[in-house]
Amino acid sequence: MTVDDARALDTADPLAFARQRFLVPDGIIYLDGNSLGALPAAAPDALARTISDQWGNDLIASWNKHRWIDAPSRIAGKLAPIVGARPDELLIADSTSICLFKLLAAAVRARPGRSTILTEAGNFPTDLYVAQGVTKLWPHLTLRAVATDEIVSAIDEDTAVVTLTHVNYRSGRRHDMAAINAAAREGGALNLWDLSHSAGAIAVDLEAAGCDLAVGCGYKYLNGGPGAPAFVFVARDLQGTLETPVPGWMGHADPFAFVADYAPAAGMLQWLTGTPSILALAALDAGIDTFAGIAMADVEAKGAELTQSFLDEVEKRCGDQVWLSSPRDPAMRGSQVSFAHPQGFAVMQALIDRGIVGDFRAPDLMRFGFAPLYNSYSDAVGAAEGLTNVLATRAWDQPRFRERRKVT
Amino acid sequence: MTVDDARALDTADPLAFARQRFLVPDGIIYLDGNSLGALPAAAPDALARTISDQWGNDLIASWNKHRWIDAPSRIAGKLAPIVGARPDELLIADSTSICLFKLLAAAVRARPGRSTILTEAGNFPTDLYVAQGVTKLWPHLTLRAVATDEIVSAIDEDTAVVTLTHVNYRSGRRHDMAAINAAAREGGALNLWDLSHSAGAIAVDLEAAGCDLAVGCGYKYLNGGPGAPAFVFVARDLQGTLETPVPGWMGHADPFAFVADYAPAAGMLQWLTGTPSILALAALDAGIDTFAGIAMADVEAKGAELTQSFLDEVEKRCGDQVWLSSPRDPAMRGSQVSFAHPQGFAVMQALIDRGIVGDFRAPDLMRFGFAPLYNSYSDAVGAAEGLTNVLATRAWDQPRFRERRKVT
Repeated sequence: MTVDDARALDTADPLAFARQRFLVPDGIIYLDGNSLGALPAAAPDALARTISDQWGNDLIASWNKHRWIDAPSRIAGKLAPIVGARPDELLIADSTSICLFKLLAAAVRARPGRSTILTEAGNFPTDLYVAQGVTKLWPHLTLRAVATDEIVSAIDEDTAVVTLTHVNYRSGRRHDMAAINAAAREGGALNLWDLSHSAGAIAVDLEAAGCDLAVGCGYKYLNGGPGAPAFVFVARDLQGTLETPVPGWMGHADPFAFVADYAPAAGMLQWLTGTPSILALAALDAGIDTFAGIAMADVEAKGAELTQSFLDEVEKRCGDQVWLSSPRDPAMRGSQVSFAHPQGFAVMQALIDRGIVGDFRAPDLMRFGFAPLYNSYSDAVGAAEGLTNVLATRAWDQPRFRERRKVT
Repeated sequence: MTVDDARALDTADPLAFARQRFLVPDGIIYLDGNSLGALPAAAPDALARTISDQWGNDLIASWNKHRWIDAPSRIAGKLAPIVGARPDELLIADSTSICLFKLLAAAVRARPGRSTILTEAGNFPTDLYVAQGVTKLWPHLTLRAVATDEIVSAIDEDTAVVTLTHVNYRSGRRHDMAAINAAAREGGALNLWDLSHSAGAIAVDLEAAGCDLAVGCGYKYLNGGPGAPAFVFVARDLQGTLETPVPGWMGHADPFAFVADYAPAAGMLQWLTGTPSILALAALDAGIDTFAGIAMADVEAKGAELTQSFLDEVEKRCGDQVWLSSPRDPAMRGSQVSFAHPQGFAVMQALIDRGIVGDFRAPDLMRFGFAPLYNSYSDAVGAAEGLTNVLATRAWDQPRFRERRKVT
């Protein structure tokens, strides 16, 4: 694929219009939306209004006048078609890690006779750490981390919860949600999915896949801003049976009655704990609005083409110097492609220096995330050309690219 | 005190300059900074830069380039003189309720032979709900809520933690931290303070008072914006012994190593869990900066004079129609005054309609919070006159003022 071919595909791309919903700096090929989504064009004004008109002028009255109080539910409603859930099964709250803790602790308490939390070795660290934290609360629990292809066979009568990340943060490998959920259900276990690397990138259908519980990240493909609030999903049939381990006033049935005893709010609201950041919610609102009117099937289809174009062009040009760490079949991966290289860190720094922004995961993995709303075929070919050039010229072999930074 | 007297006091007020650090709408007497602090004048630009220059232009590189990664510690350092702690004893994180949960669960685990969490009846609901949640985690625990003057005598060899709010959200009554801490220590219990209604309002000295653990709210007197992140305090000598119940990747000793097993970061950083909202942190940063160069002793002294002026002027003018619900001695209260009235809700709505903004707590309490950085003697007298007038004319007796709203 030449640069001209890519331009032609961009011209014909039915989702090309969506790039105007973002402010992506000129001259940058941004392939790190799986770590921090780009700035929605509507976000600066939305935030400025929230700050000056609402906080500044209307002050405390904004909780009613600007419906701040409803923001966690209202924004969740917009998220519903993106993850294939009903609006009343979703809520915006806290961070992904805190939400994971709440649901995981609630889930193991809903399966009191069982003592295993089952996960995948190589799951995202915070998912493992939260699960380790839950096992420390109650010594009868153990966390069992098994290889990807052993998950289904590891489910047994002692499994309380199967907790997995839908798309792996390193390889981009995607789990078959429906198959795992069916096995978990047959084994009497609950399922809990982390959608951090899939919500907004591929066509997640929590309902159709039989998901019990899920959480996800607001600041990656949902474009909600750095450290955006997360979301929680609880399937409707479980909502009466699960109990938050962290009851707080915002999740009370009648928060402004200020009564002494906790009584959970109906539905999803019990998963609120403290007062949420209204500024963070306003940014997430603008992020989720970038999906307005766009079908996730189209997003997934474009993502598959972008990642496949990049993968093919890299392998054609410099496939002997990098090792593909993502599934070759687009149906088996999310919207990212990872290549390993022994000098992956320095290679990525040299790419970033040329305005091709991916990221690096130790020890050797270069990640390239494609956000179908703002990435293009030209991005895919440009990044492949850039990588080829950096490797061919050994441009990475400079001290300034080898020096490690705190956050990579 | 006449309006002219108040103006003269404002002219002589050594803290009067601080009002220019805020954008308070004209024509409003804002006495609800104990619920939502006013907008710092520097916040809109600070947020606009964070959004457009950092998130928008520098994208993921901002974690290093703009030191997003250090924000929770860096802002905590600025908070240190406001609450009388060392910078390395504080961290910005999550919400007050989530922080309370983390510290309370950690505290009871640090006292394994003891089974009582001791608190005050009438503590803020979220403090009670979180404690109820912790007792549900481990059935050997019970929550004991006693009357204010029975707290010290209720501490016994079964008390794991004494958890109290420093200044009561309804009455404004202030606890004697040092005395309670001494009793708790003698009884072998830990102390955990909620500073939501005192941090930024009075001269808290966590070190001098012998506090073990504390949390506090960013969006009240610290002016950090609606739903701002909270803070946690862990006394240095306890930092090696307490363990967070919610370990997450941002609190790992080496977050970007992405290893499978949790190992807590040194010092306060282990109390981070997920990725914090950078926008919310930027607003809180601007909020805490409103205290730059100002001694908390001066803030407390001015607050005492403002609340006393208001209290005296109300009692002089209409003391037969309202009932003081706050301590008469300023040393015994925070920076708020509460009056009860059988029609308190409608009276407060009528006041708000006239631009005098306090708030209401069921069943009958009108709260007037004085933020010494932006409230004035003129505010105190103006509010007292307004209240007198609303009562004298029965201006509150209209259906539009009696109608209850979702958030009051």
